[in-house]
Amino acid sequence: MSSRFELIAFDADDTLWHNEIVFQSTHKRFVSLLEKYHEPEWILERLFATEIQNLKHFGYGIKGFTLSMIETAVELTEGRVSGKEIQYIVEMGRDMLAHPVELLEGAKEVVEEIAGSHPIMLLTKGDLLDQETKLARSGLGDLFSDIEIVSEKNVDTYAAVLERQKVHPEKFLMVGNSIKSDIIPVLEAGGEAVYIPYKTTWAHEQVPEKEVKQHQFTRLGSIQELPPWLGG
Amino acid sequence: MSSRFELIAFDADDTLWHNEIVFQSTHKRFVSLLEKYHEPEWILERLFATEIQNLKHFGYGIKGFTLSMIETAVELTEGRVSGKEIQYIVEMGRDMLAHPVELLEGAKEVVEEIAGSHPIMLLTKGDLLDQETKLARSGLGDLFSDIEIVSEKNVDTYAAVLERQKVHPEKFLMVGNSIKSDIIPVLEAGGEAVYIPYKTTWAHEQVPEKEVKQHQFTRLGSIQELPPWLGG
Repeated sequence: MSSRFELIAFDADDTLWHNEIVFQSTHKRFVSLLEKYHEPEWILERLFATEIQNLKHFGYGIKGFTLSMIETAVELTEGRVSGKEIQYIVEMGRDMLAHPVELLEGAKEVVEEIAGSHPIMLLTKGDLLDQETKLARSGLGDLFSDIEIVSEKNVDTYAAVLERQKVHPEKFLMVGNSIKSDIIPVLEAGGEAVYIPYKTTWAHEQVPEKEVKQHQFTRLGSIQELPPWLGG
Repeated sequence: MSSRFELIAFDADDTLWHNEIVFQSTHKRFVSLLEKYHEPEWILERLFATEIQNLKHFGYGIKGFTLSMIETAVELTEGRVSGKEIQYIVEMGRDMLAHPVELLEGAKEVVEEIAGSHPIMLLTKGDLLDQETKLARSGLGDLFSDIEIVSEKNVDTYAAVLERQKVHPEKFLMVGNSIKSDIIPVLEAGGEAVYIPYKTTWAHEQVPEKEVKQHQFTRLGSIQELPPWLGG
């Protein structure tokens, strides 16, 4: 397989391995903890609001999310949450960090195949140590010529990556599941992007349909469609 | 000024700007919160033990430290810590993240001077977003040709940095305040290192004197001694 791309970058969470489901199962545990105080919808609404409020302080990742769960629990119980319950929330965070890495179907074969003909890199956001250990546990680590874990994926991030990697934008392809983080800013930086939606998208990463329509990019049904699209 | 080095890397916390003092002032607030339950020494001993236990899960940085404070508070109060007190601990974490960046005396002038004659990079560990925003607030960001925030500074980290930066080890100089993180692993990777001790060292970064003596490196009294040492 060959293509006109000199560097192909992959997002990690929900592009190569399942991630959102780990958050969703934690949401369920969090709701169970607080359902004696509030309705599930309200608990999740307040948790999401706290997460968004904290993003500028804590950034993305499980540690910040855990601190947001703790703050939400204090708020929703008006301070009545017990020490034991707080400890349980910290343990939820540690459980998330220790959760097995489950690759998406076909991800391993596709990454191996593309790595045989293109330099590939991993480009993801989240907690540094968490993303590194997930990559190590995924068994895919050796296939990537470079790994960058960034605090935000915007047009400046991609411009800096392209400069560091010494790749012209038109020779760069990004593959990911978030239109907001993996697609639009890449197009704005002059690169190309392939969108492979995951079955569910975190509310913070959702983009209004009207805005999506202003951009031209390829949408594939699964990562297994990537090699044929590349011309393999 | 010229030297035989093709790349000079600077550690950030307590090498360019004050950091340990931010942790120490938070230690004081944490002790005040729990002193009705325990002696200060025991509070700090348990906090340190929890931090070290959590490093493998959370890595370095303020978010993990905040979670460790929360766990320690639950443990030391046998679960009696109140929601309000937990909220206060989360706020301590946010205060640390928002703490002004205070450069060490002479750091700005020295970094500017060395950047005029050598490519320089920043090489630090901690939370991604926190280190990035500290660098931005320091006013030094534009002086560095590259920035790497890593989850651990060991010999493999330095070998990977040297490979990415395409620099021979003997042409690489690391400048930092931690013998454990900035000096010994650099020497093991074949590079050179300059140790500039800060007035205080986090217990986790301390190295037994016997081990220190096995290594040859330069020790300077302050960052202001670096340009003359380099031959400026």
